[in-house]
Amino acid sequence: MYRPEIKVLDCTLRDGGLINNHAFPDHFVKAVFKACSEAGVDYIEMGYKADKDQFDPNKFGACKFCDDDYIKKVIDGVKSKAKISAMVDIGRVDLNKLKKKKDSVVDLVRVACYLKDVDKAIEHVKRIVDKGYDTTINIMAISTALQPDVEEALVQLAEAPVKAVYVVDSFGSMFSEQVHFLVKLYAQYLKPRGIEVGMHAHNNQQLGFANTIEAIRKGANYVDGTLFGIGRAAGNCPMELLLAFLKNPKFKLEPIIEVIEKELMPLRDQIEWGYIIPYMITGVLNQHPRAAMALRASPDKDKFTDFYRSLVSDEEL
Amino acid sequence: MYRPEIKVLDCTLRDGGLINNHAFPDHFVKAVFKACSEAGVDYIEMGYKADKDQFDPNKFGACKFCDDDYIKKVIDGVKSKAKISAMVDIGRVDLNKLKKKKDSVVDLVRVACYLKDVDKAIEHVKRIVDKGYDTTINIMAISTALQPDVEEALVQLAEAPVKAVYVVDSFGSMFSEQVHFLVKLYAQYLKPRGIEVGMHAHNNQQLGFANTIEAIRKGANYVDGTLFGIGRAAGNCPMELLLAFLKNPKFKLEPIIEVIEKELMPLRDQIEWGYIIPYMITGVLNQHPRAAMALRASPDKDKFTDFYRSLVSDEEL
Repeated sequence: MYRPEIKVLDCTLRDGGLINNHAFPDHFVKAVFKACSEAGVDYIEMGYKADKDQFDPNKFGACKFCDDDYIKKVIDGVKSKAKISAMVDIGRVDLNKLKKKKDSVVDLVRVACYLKDVDKAIEHVKRIVDKGYDTTINIMAISTALQPDVEEALVQLAEAPVKAVYVVDSFGSMFSEQVHFLVKLYAQYLKPRGIEVGMHAHNNQQLGFANTIEAIRKGANYVDGTLFGIGRAAGNCPMELLLAFLKNPKFKLEPIIEVIEKELMPLRDQIEWGYIIPYMITGVLNQHPRAAMALRASPDKDKFTDFYRSLVSDEEL
Repeated sequence: MYRPEIKVLDCTLRDGGLINNHAFPDHFVKAVFKACSEAGVDYIEMGYKADKDQFDPNKFGACKFCDDDYIKKVIDGVKSKAKISAMVDIGRVDLNKLKKKKDSVVDLVRVACYLKDVDKAIEHVKRIVDKGYDTTINIMAISTALQPDVEEALVQLAEAPVKAVYVVDSFGSMFSEQVHFLVKLYAQYLKPRGIEVGMHAHNNQQLGFANTIEAIRKGANYVDGTLFGIGRAAGNCPMELLLAFLKNPKFKLEPIIEVIEKELMPLRDQIEWGYIIPYMITGVLNQHPRAAMALRASPDKDKFTDFYRSLVSDEEL
């Protein structure tokens, strides 16, 4: 049986783009949009709305900025019922330059923040909602937060004009107990105000899909996935597994399998993501993957044991 | 907090050997045994006790047969508190040739069978116990069994002289609900007779580790893992994740990380295992991975979409 309220969001282009500075070729962007549309995915995230004064458009691809003209051009001719999403990071977006919704192809703007910046995130969503968009707030690195701080934030978030607030397991360190606890806690504050709970999982411990299912079981209705799990470091919940799990007949698996075969596998030969030991180690230690990402970019990339020792001895200090 | 009753079994050499006809070089076998011993793993499975009249020793490696002389030679000089396990398949072993326990380094003989062969498995364990060994029964492909048949088997198994009976998710198709259901059902019949429940998971849906944790939560005390998840097709629950999850201070992660770096990664360049789309497809469809394994051995190995279509159209017939 399925829950029709569940909304699936593909963030292949946004989270996957963190590996390659969002420098996806146009044919790739179009193929992802087409496959996700055919598969019945509810939201397709095209990337970030980053501030061009802070990020050089010569160094980052079009999905870093999600200009309306670019999106319109690249999805031209594709039949789609999907809504279009873009993400903004607190402090890395110039909201003055955000067009009004009526002049944009974007439907949903997701605001990513750390727990300490929830007030700023709420200010952002108010301005974005004033321009006519739907919004969510995605609280990153929630596995490092203390319950009273989370509850204090939830009290404020319950008053914010958002569609959903996401549990984001940025470090891929959470187990089903933590997922159950946080989703139920979020739901307790947010659902009575008509705000949904979302789940964005990472795969450092091969629990990206498992934790997404567990969030669904506890009532999360906004869930993120990416094609073949592409995403920074260990990557995300694989869309192919998520759609196969959800019983809603509107979802089709075949377009997802096909785009993985045709577009993701060739990309995999060029850039790395997914479960490997360095990302497993940061996940187990509930740490940001940046040390593991630095390792993988160094000549010592395969020296897993030295890496483990260095992080564990850091911990012991 | 940890449960001291939990026994961890490494089946790298046994399940991993299904990929390469158990043709591991001696230095690899020794390194796996040494690392698992140092890590505090309770049981190390050296392979199968297969009948040499059925399997040609010139075509299969030493871990297919687990001769005592071979095991003694290969682990010579390694300090270890681990017990040694070997698996037998119903109909593929000559129990007349099994030495008595007092003349063997093997402690535990695990009997693998399908549900329909539980009577035969019980006959096997009786003969094996008579020779002085501990035993388990591992019921494969349990995701395709009907509850009344499972319960009928459990009634008999509750009378058998086994240490544990395993839930084996051979196709990697189960979700946490099915794991919870089966582990609780097994426990209901077996625990009152002092028989433990075991879990052996496969990773077709990236749920090998997640399902093993869920089995532990519901009382399973015998759990299998393999180094970097090596095993037939999508592989198994990764030992490195399992040991990091278990809080028992007797477990050490570093030897596992090191043997993965030194031995598993080079092997990975030669043989394939782990999550890929063809194995995901058979997992989602609750099928044996043999069709996906045949695909991967064919020139069409990367034609995921055609493979998906062929299996789905089979299903519709």
